[in-house]
Amino acid sequence: MAYQVKILPQKRKIKAKDNESLVEKLHEAGINLSTYCNKRGLCGKCFVEIVEGLRPRLGKREKFLLAHKGLNKNYRLACLYKIKGNLSITIPEESIIQEAFILKTGIQIPISLDSAVKKYHLKLEKPSIVNPYSISELLETSLKVKDLNISLEQLKELQNIIAQSKLFVTAAVYKNREILNIEQNNTVNENFGIAVDLGTTTVVVELVNLNTGESIDLLTAPNSQLRYGSDVISRISFAITEQKNLVKLRNSILQTLNQMIEKLLAKNHIHKSHVYEIVVAGNSSMNHILLGLPVKSLARAPFHSVFSRLTEQSAQGLGFKINDYAKVYLSPNIKSFVGGDVSAGLLASDFINRKGNFLFIDLGTNGEIVLKTENRLMVTSTAAGPAFEGMNISCGTLALPGAIYKAENEDQFKLFTLGNKRAIGICGTGLIDLIALLLDKKKISAKGSIQDSKKRIPITENIWITQKDIREMQLAIAAIKTGIKMILKENRLNKEDLDGIFIAGAFGNYLSIENSMKIGLLPWIDEKKIVFIGNSSLAGARALLLSQPARKRVNAMIKRVRYLSLAKNPRFQKYFIDSIEFQTY
Amino acid sequence: MAYQVKILPQKRKIKAKDNESLVEKLHEAGINLSTYCNKRGLCGKCFVEIVEGLRPRLGKREKFLLAHKGLNKNYRLACLYKIKGNLSITIPEESIIQEAFILKTGIQIPISLDSAVKKYHLKLEKPSIVNPYSISELLETSLKVKDLNISLEQLKELQNIIAQSKLFVTAAVYKNREILNIEQNNTVNENFGIAVDLGTTTVVVELVNLNTGESIDLLTAPNSQLRYGSDVISRISFAITEQKNLVKLRNSILQTLNQMIEKLLAKNHIHKSHVYEIVVAGNSSMNHILLGLPVKSLARAPFHSVFSRLTEQSAQGLGFKINDYAKVYLSPNIKSFVGGDVSAGLLASDFINRKGNFLFIDLGTNGEIVLKTENRLMVTSTAAGPAFEGMNISCGTLALPGAIYKAENEDQFKLFTLGNKRAIGICGTGLIDLIALLLDKKKISAKGSIQDSKKRIPITENIWITQKDIREMQLAIAAIKTGIKMILKENRLNKEDLDGIFIAGAFGNYLSIENSMKIGLLPWIDEKKIVFIGNSSLAGARALLLSQPARKRVNAMIKRVRYLSLAKNPRFQKYFIDSIEFQTY
Repeated sequence: MAYQVKILPQKRKIKAKDNESLVEKLHEAGINLSTYCNKRGLCGKCFVEIVEGLRPRLGKREKFLLAHKGLNKNYRLACLYKIKGNLSITIPEESIIQEAFILKTGIQIPISLDSAVKKYHLKLEKPSIVNPYSISELLETSLKVKDLNISLEQLKELQNIIAQSKLFVTAAVYKNREILNIEQNNTVNENFGIAVDLGTTTVVVELVNLNTGESIDLLTAPNSQLRYGSDVISRISFAITEQKNLVKLRNSILQTLNQMIEKLLAKNHIHKSHVYEIVVAGNSSMNHILLGLPVKSLARAPFHSVFSRLTEQSAQGLGFKINDYAKVYLSPNIKSFVGGDVSAGLLASDFINRKGNFLFIDLGTNGEIVLKTENRLMVTSTAAGPAFEGMNISCGTLALPGAIYKAENEDQFKLFTLGNKRAIGICGTGLIDLIALLLDKKKISAKGSIQDSKKRIPITENIWITQKDIREMQLAIAAIKTGIKMILKENRLNKEDLDGIFIAGAFGNYLSIENSMKIGLLPWIDEKKIVFIGNSSLAGARALLLSQPARKRVNAMIKRVRYLSLAKNPRFQKYFIDSIEFQTY
Repeated sequence: MAYQVKILPQKRKIKAKDNESLVEKLHEAGINLSTYCNKRGLCGKCFVEIVEGLRPRLGKREKFLLAHKGLNKNYRLACLYKIKGNLSITIPEESIIQEAFILKTGIQIPISLDSAVKKYHLKLEKPSIVNPYSISELLETSLKVKDLNISLEQLKELQNIIAQSKLFVTAAVYKNREILNIEQNNTVNENFGIAVDLGTTTVVVELVNLNTGESIDLLTAPNSQLRYGSDVISRISFAITEQKNLVKLRNSILQTLNQMIEKLLAKNHIHKSHVYEIVVAGNSSMNHILLGLPVKSLARAPFHSVFSRLTEQSAQGLGFKINDYAKVYLSPNIKSFVGGDVSAGLLASDFINRKGNFLFIDLGTNGEIVLKTENRLMVTSTAAGPAFEGMNISCGTLALPGAIYKAENEDQFKLFTLGNKRAIGICGTGLIDLIALLLDKKKISAKGSIQDSKKRIPITENIWITQKDIREMQLAIAAIKTGIKMILKENRLNKEDLDGIFIAGAFGNYLSIENSMKIGLLPWIDEKKIVFIGNSSLAGARALLLSQPARKRVNAMIKRVRYLSLAKNPRFQKYFIDSIEFQTY
């Protein structure tokens, strides 16, 4: 038998055969009905109104969900509905699958919400003398899950709840197979996660609604480990000199994160017990320190990490102050110093699915460069030092209010400060602009020497650039330039073969592409090919928080990555020395 | 292309196509070559000698295994071997899959060894500057496992091992996905497990070699909880009167088990760190107590348990003194009081795969009766009390040396004692024989009254049977008889429809079938249909220890079981009263 499903109000028509699933027919027709609970009739997110046609008897769960949503009796769950005649339906907007856009700038990558932690409001059945089901079986039946993992602690709690006949509960379920927690009453809407961009210099913590994908709020703070060393290498050195130093570093970052989370939750009136997962995107060293894993293998050749992909950890076990049963997932480290910040960034920008040859550059203390060709994915890491973050520069500053982030060429320099505040110093993008302008004005030579044999060039009354500052920038730029040239060479590509360059990192839109090309930080290509994707590590962490398939993708991706070691490459020295001059390439 | 594989010395011939897998062709031909490591070329258990034919270049791992086994270079792993020409091979006996027989009496059920814990001897690669793999990746590569779970603790340990260049290690791997432990050097042969029959009255602990399936040794001891009550009901009552009582019961059994395990290990010169898994088969109450789960839901209607199937637990977490990372698996509870002892017993006897109608009877303090028909699996539980175990009987005893376990009819009773020792009392089977003989001699009536109006019947000089003892036995027998009759009635079967009865429990071969039928404990059917299967709980625990597929089978099985509640059944009273008389049925 062939039937017709008419979708109102547009009167679009779909053909269906006897007993076919309504949700599947709608999917085939390109209508993205929600399948949050994997079509188990559990979440109530795919209700459609049967305007005309058969309305089969409501199941127990369906009736429960209908009542809770306040829908009339014409509604049915599309995932349970088998087509057995002609139909006219309307589809409420809430039943359409929700997508979140991951990057906040540059390119739009939608992902479908499918978080690891899902909450279901349930009415527990009481065991009866005729069916003396065990509590674990009752829960398996309610959740329609075979082989559910449930801890002894949760079982005890459930036994109490059932004994008190408090049968309306909300189950927080992890990856569809593990009970994290049972909460009383309906707390389905209270389901939150935390995305963390764990940088060497800066930490960003974002509060995310796991049900809607909404980014609720975020906080940025300096990494409190800065007091133990400003860059990764000095942190590693500190960590390995004494065993207790690793503990100090770990406690330091943990305290920062807990304080930031506490602040975010308080501000948004969310209780910590409703935060069920944290996803961290950090570089290898930060990841190791957070877990308390020794970093000695990152301190000397062959500079390898202890882990790449890691199973989800217990948040409580690691010391996070959120729900006691919450999980922590780390975006996987790729190789050596190329860590979870980069894997998250690649994920967020859907990098490996681009058509053509693409570069991904993360301009941080460590410069990470990834090249994607038709059949290869290669990464290299180059120590740029903290100059791009305004560190080790005499009047340098992090990108804080008052930082000179941009300069334009007029008689005097036209300077722009963050927040339009009084200038306090120069941050990375400001330095790049100023150096390009000074080159234009021939105040410094291509070799980087200040021309009028002064020791420093004044920028404002009390802000200047010294010869040493310029040398720092030359080294930082040369590191990146060498990395880019070598990874292209290794893959027999010229810059003209590139279809695009993604620039990740805090630089964001403030970086002048033209000036970056002029001083040789970026290769001279069509400006339109260069895209700023902002804090892609944080975006990737959010994607991993909101989408289980994203975790699979990132794991599959890191297995494909090949590593290009610069240090041992015979060409490295030559390329590096050639790159010291400010020169387009 | 079609090739021929000749198996020497029998010269049996097998046909194969180009590039077919040797191990698969041999399997198809009914030759059970070992696939311990799932054909990953990892365990070295499927070596065959290539007498004639292509010998492809040895892989790194293959070479390593060959050297360790001291085999010559003609040998290849059949799991990695692709057929590309005519072959003549010989198959060493060690390469044939090992089977263990589970039940020690009654019926022979073979199982293939496929334990959850497997050990592999590895040579770790050191990360290199060109390939700075993380330690977790190195291990995944060595073990040919994607997405291996490894704890932070193990990662730290591995980092130390690699830093010290101690690269020969043995990995204990759980279910092919989790590293339990890394041991230095080759400890592959040290891989042990413990099977536990956790009875209300008696505990049996068996030491098992997980590599060979060999049952190395066993110990039997009374359940030390006996001091808190002789039967399940009194233990439950004790547990629920005060919260600390549950802890007392739990500590008591844990101490017993740890002491028994320690004794077994010492006697057999095995270190506790080489014991990686415990499987427990216990009734619902014992299982709950062992885990520290409250038993209040087993104390009153509807008498339901907290859990049925449970994820593997941490042995250390539960308090077992074996390897710190070892696991504990509990044979799943079925329903209500029907626990893991019965699920293990059904598994061990391959009960659900019998053709026809079968009864499984476990004669313990609780009598458990399972009926299998063509399309149903039904269980019921009946409180027989401890009379069958010689408890609550004036001269009763457990089946200890000196127990009268058998009696034959002569002028005087001919008595048999366990160990041929001086009689100390009468155990269950002895009681059944004596009552049957006293009925024959008309010393007692069918209604159970002692005929010559004496209060007790002397058996030896200082052992006798009282009127009260006979009443106890009548109640115990009536409980079983009622259970059997009601479960048959519920399924519209007559005793003649039964194709077999399996009798499980410590009674073993000592139970006289004829006398059991005479007094009405068992239905009067062809004696050949009745099979004693001994301690099937222990056998099932051993099967679960040795075979992962067995765990899947037992989980699938318990989901099929329907529960027959006797207490609420309107027929129960009538059937029970009708069953009080000693009468065949």
